[in-house]
Formats: sequence, C-alpha cells, structure tokens
Amino acid sequence: MSKQEPQVVSITDLPLEKAKWVTLKKIDFIDQTGTPRTWEVAIRKTTSKSGVDAVAMGTIFVHPSKPPSTMLVIQYRPPVGKYTIEWPAGLIDADETPEEAAVREMKEETGYEGRILESGPVVSSDPGLTNATLKLVMVEVKLPEGEENIMPDQKLDDGELIERVMVPLSELYDRLIQWSKEDKYMIAGKLFYFAAGMHFAKNSGYV
Amino acid sequence: MSKQEPQVVSITDLPLEKAKWVTLKKIDFIDQTGTPRTWEVAIRKTTSKSGVDAVAMGTIFVHPSKPPSTMLVIQYRPPVGKYTIEWPAGLIDADETPEEAAVREMKEETGYEGRILESGPVVSSDPGLTNATLKLVMVEVKLPEGEENIMPDQKLDDGELIERVMVPLSELYDRLIQWSKEDKYMIAGKLFYFAAGMHFAKNSGYV
Repeated sequence: MSKQEPQVVSITDLPLEKAKWVTLKKIDFIDQTGTPRTWEVAIRKTTSKSGVDAVAMGTIFVHPSKPPSTMLVIQYRPPVGKYTIEWPAGLIDADETPEEAAVREMKEETGYEGRILESGPVVSSDPGLTNATLKLVMVEVKLPEGEENIMPDQKLDDGELIERVMVPLSELYDRLIQWSKEDKYMIAGKLFYFAAGMHFAKNSGYV
Repeated sequence: MSKQEPQVVSITDLPLEKAKWVTLKKIDFIDQTGTPRTWEVAIRKTTSKSGVDAVAMGTIFVHPSKPPSTMLVIQYRPPVGKYTIEWPAGLIDADETPEEAAVREMKEETGYEGRILESGPVVSSDPGLTNATLKLVMVEVKLPEGEENIMPDQKLDDGELIERVMVPLSELYDRLIQWSKEDKYMIAGKLFYFAAGMHFAKNSGYV
C-alpha cells in the first residue's frame, strides 16, 4: 500500500500554548479522607457536544458462505511509532451524535455502510491518564455472495492512510497474538481486550 | 467506605516544566506519501525498564460451590471526575517485570495472591493520544469453601482508596451496563471491551 515507511524526524517538547489537540491540566482535589491531593491529566481539546470524544466500531461482516469476520484497520500511529491493529474509530464531530459518527467513520475508513447492532455506554479510555471517553458501537455489514472480494473505496481524510484486513472472528485472538510478535505492529488495547473476552468465553470453561 | 465524597477544588493549566507524571510532545514525521506531518502526544514520564507502562489484571475467582467470578475495583478517578469500575491495575516499577508487577498489584489492590493464567502481549492504551502501553495478565484465585466472605486486607499505597466488588462472570456485561447508567460511575473502556467480547461470544451466534 505505502510508497515508503513513515519516518520520525523529531520529537520535541510541546508547550501548552502551542498545542492544538491535547493539553495538560492539574486537578487539585480533596479525597474521601479529607486530604488535599493533585492529579495530572491529559485532556483532549476536541470533545464534541455529545460529551463523548470518540467512537469505535466493532465491525461484524456476515456472508452466506464464509465465516463471520471482522474488519480491522492498520495504520501508522506516531504516538506509538508503529503500525497499530485496531477497529475503525474516530473523533465525534461537533454536532454529531456518537451513532452518526459511527456510521460516517465506518464508511470513511472501511468503505462499507453498516447497520448498528448495539451502541455501548460511554466508557473511559484510560482513566488514570486522561478524561477521554468513547463508545463502542457494534456494526454489522451483510456481504452478498460473490461480492466478498470487491472492497468499496474508502473516503479517507487528508493524511489518513489506512489498510483494511478481514479476519474470521474465530481466528481473531490468535491473529492478534501473531501480529503482536512482529516488531512493526502493535495491537490497540481495547480491540485486544474484546478478542481476549471472546477467547476466554470460548476456552476457559467458566462462562 | 468513604468518609466524604471527593471534591475537585480547581483544574488549572499544567506547564510542562511543572509536570511530574505526564508531558506533551510534538512528533514531526514524514508519512508514507512523503508528506511532512505533525502529531501531538501525551507521554508518561514513568515507563519502566521493561518498556511497558502498566499492567492490568483480569481477575478470575473460582470457588467449589459458587459461580466463577471476577473482582472489580471501584475508585475515584480525578481525570474523569467519577468513580470508575475497572480491573485492578498499576504502573510497573522501574526494576520489575510486568508479571512481578501483576502479582504485586493484585495483592495490593485486592488482598489476594493469584496464579498467572496468561500474560498478554504489550498493547497500546490509546494509540491516537499517547505512547502508553500495558499488558493484560489473567490471574486466577482459588477460594476455599467457606472463605468466600473473608476478604484479606488490601495493602494500598498512601492516597489509594479502592473498593472491591465480586461479580459472577456470567453477569459481568449486564452489571457494567447497569453501572454505566448511574451518573456517579464510569466503566473503564478496556474492562468493558472484555465483557463485550464475552457477551458477543455467548449471544451473537457468530462465534
């Protein structure tokens, strides 16, 4: 897909007054015992009116004669300096609902129009570090027989270079483990946890 | 448990030179098409020698006559301004392996000594925002008959106030959805994804 490997030129301090997307805040609070404490937090400057920052799509592809699968996206992520394996996701625009954003981002990143199966609660992305929140929206796409290999065009934003990979749900956990062993890739935590939950339910004998 | 509700006193800008735990960096990079681009990233200043920031424990409690359960922890998280429902987790100390940290943090936050069932790959916490990484370590505790109600003492750090809740695995997804409807609580995203994965495996008919 790519013409060349991405290359980091420099990593430099970013003073708050120059940051456009993220900022740092200090929270002074009184804890349950009455003790004054502080906490440092990374804050997105882009939270939508819906009060949720982002939406991620649990993509389920069903087909008359192929196993139920999920479409993952692979993209270079500068914060981790690797290609990440993730579910499609994106920030919610100012006047969008999370579900509108889910359908839009699904179309942009995968090329497919999906049907929302379930829209999850607002959850915290990393509650020790940031106030960022997201919703997991499960989205189903029904592929007609014979059209499984014709992927529709993506509608990517400028600068987005996103590769698509289809993986049968029954193989997802093992495939993620394989990818994680290659230095070039890193698995996004939330996708891994979903796969680990499926794997545990199927194999532990406890659920 | 608590004597009073935590109270936020102030949220103020935190200049980089005053931040101890987190900082902001600007990454200048050349993308795959040869175009120069920038990305803003929140970076933990505490990454251990193992190269992983944190460890989270998927706690599995088994008992001769009770359903397999998981222990969750509830604590006030200043970044989200609510009580979060999470799996026990913590930063890895400088000279620890992730697995040593898992056993230590498990003991500190739950009071229990667990046996590691599986240690997951290093995954990205929120790859669009931060370089922070973690490992999910599945930990099993076998409770003897009759001792299910005697919780051993936690060994919490100064300032940690963590409540423990046991939930049967078969009820986890529904309980998280219930909690998410109460304004006081927010579910940690990764725990929710694991529960959603179990729920999907059991109920979708696809796995």
